[in-house]
Amino acid sequence: MHRFFVPAGNVEGDEIQFTPAQARQISRVLRLRSGDEVQALDNSGACYLVQLQETGQGRAFGRITGKEQAPGEPATRVHLSQGLLKGEKWGWVLQKGTEVGISAFRGLVCARSVPRRDAKAWDSRARRWSAIVQEAAEQSGRGIIPEVLEPATWEDACRAGAGSGLLLHEGEMQIGLRDGLVGLKGQTTVLLLAGPEGGLTNEEVLIARDYHIPAVSLGPRILRAETAGVIAAALVLFERGEMQRR
Amino acid sequence: MHRFFVPAGNVEGDEIQFTPAQARQISRVLRLRSGDEVQALDNSGACYLVQLQETGQGRAFGRITGKEQAPGEPATRVHLSQGLLKGEKWGWVLQKGTEVGISAFRGLVCARSVPRRDAKAWDSRARRWSAIVQEAAEQSGRGIIPEVLEPATWEDACRAGAGSGLLLHEGEMQIGLRDGLVGLKGQTTVLLLAGPEGGLTNEEVLIARDYHIPAVSLGPRILRAETAGVIAAALVLFERGEMQRR
Repeated sequence: MHRFFVPAGNVEGDEIQFTPAQARQISRVLRLRSGDEVQALDNSGACYLVQLQETGQGRAFGRITGKEQAPGEPATRVHLSQGLLKGEKWGWVLQKGTEVGISAFRGLVCARSVPRRDAKAWDSRARRWSAIVQEAAEQSGRGIIPEVLEPATWEDACRAGAGSGLLLHEGEMQIGLRDGLVGLKGQTTVLLLAGPEGGLTNEEVLIARDYHIPAVSLGPRILRAETAGVIAAALVLFERGEMQRR
Repeated sequence: MHRFFVPAGNVEGDEIQFTPAQARQISRVLRLRSGDEVQALDNSGACYLVQLQETGQGRAFGRITGKEQAPGEPATRVHLSQGLLKGEKWGWVLQKGTEVGISAFRGLVCARSVPRRDAKAWDSRARRWSAIVQEAAEQSGRGIIPEVLEPATWEDACRAGAGSGLLLHEGEMQIGLRDGLVGLKGQTTVLLLAGPEGGLTNEEVLIARDYHIPAVSLGPRILRAETAGVIAAALVLFERGEMQRR
């Protein structure tokens, strides 16, 4: 069934008003008609079953016929902070990470990251990142649209991750992801830290250690920067029982 | 360290001869010189430590100084057979799946797959697929280059997977991937079957059942076709202890 995130203000009583862009998609692209059913989400985690009442002329309304918790929203919040990647790869991480179940993404300025933090460039792309995560959230059945946070420094991210973070590090030879998760038992938020394409410097690894963020290995195969975070997120959610139906 | 797969015939005694393309990359792109160390792989699972002896003029030779099993080659062979995807997505599955540890890939002709089997088109692209998996295998530290097999029908794939297969199916409400793996204990090959972007027909799901391939769920979030196989492969290898250092 088709799913649409609508602004919370567009839910009033048992009536839903879709945005003009959604109305166009509903009537012109999907060719849905009055009486057809869709799902609407207000970004609270709730999922409304909606019967379309009126479509066309750039407007679409529906009546709420049921409400439940969106089943695709994980109880564990995985937050991925990783060295800034080039646009195409970052877009890919946002899309795949949203499907898998990541709740927040943040790009980090690292010693070896190629794209530098540039407020102007970031602003111009923020809308693109938002569109990617919203579309992936609708497609995969999430109840809350993941956040794409502003870039931060490596040290800021480590400070934020003290006590709930794991550092994905190919240089770690002993501790696996599962071992690392044992230390985070009971934590509902797990922060995954990963480096940029050029890898982390020794200093950056030591900063993470200073903030008591254990380094964990994803095994003997070296995953590209854009692969490591998404795969690790899937493994965290699998280990927490969130990759099976409840 | 830089890694190169060389034809098995290029390993003679303790001498390695690199291909002309590798020789160009070694001397012109990577600017390596005599005395520098690289790794060479002969696609047997072995990994040679090699000291370069002679580079330049389109030739590169090296002397073997050590040999071990390539640490990145998993003991469990995961074989992914999935509904044919469009070129860009299939290339992505090959690259990410190789990093994660998949050993063989096969595209399947399904009722709802958009790209149709076309021997000519497939041949013209076979070289591209080979290049993608070889590069990803070198980058990630595999010991054997994954196979990209010729397309087959859904039923052929189910027949091949009888007894060692799992069907990734979003319609499955009970059985998770971990449950499915319990039934494959002791199997060194796990065949993962996945549908195309348009999804599987009921008939295709029944064909898999006829061949005793259990359907498993990847949880409440709906993964895109190109995401499901790669993520499932990572989870299988994680569950088998192959996503941690040994």
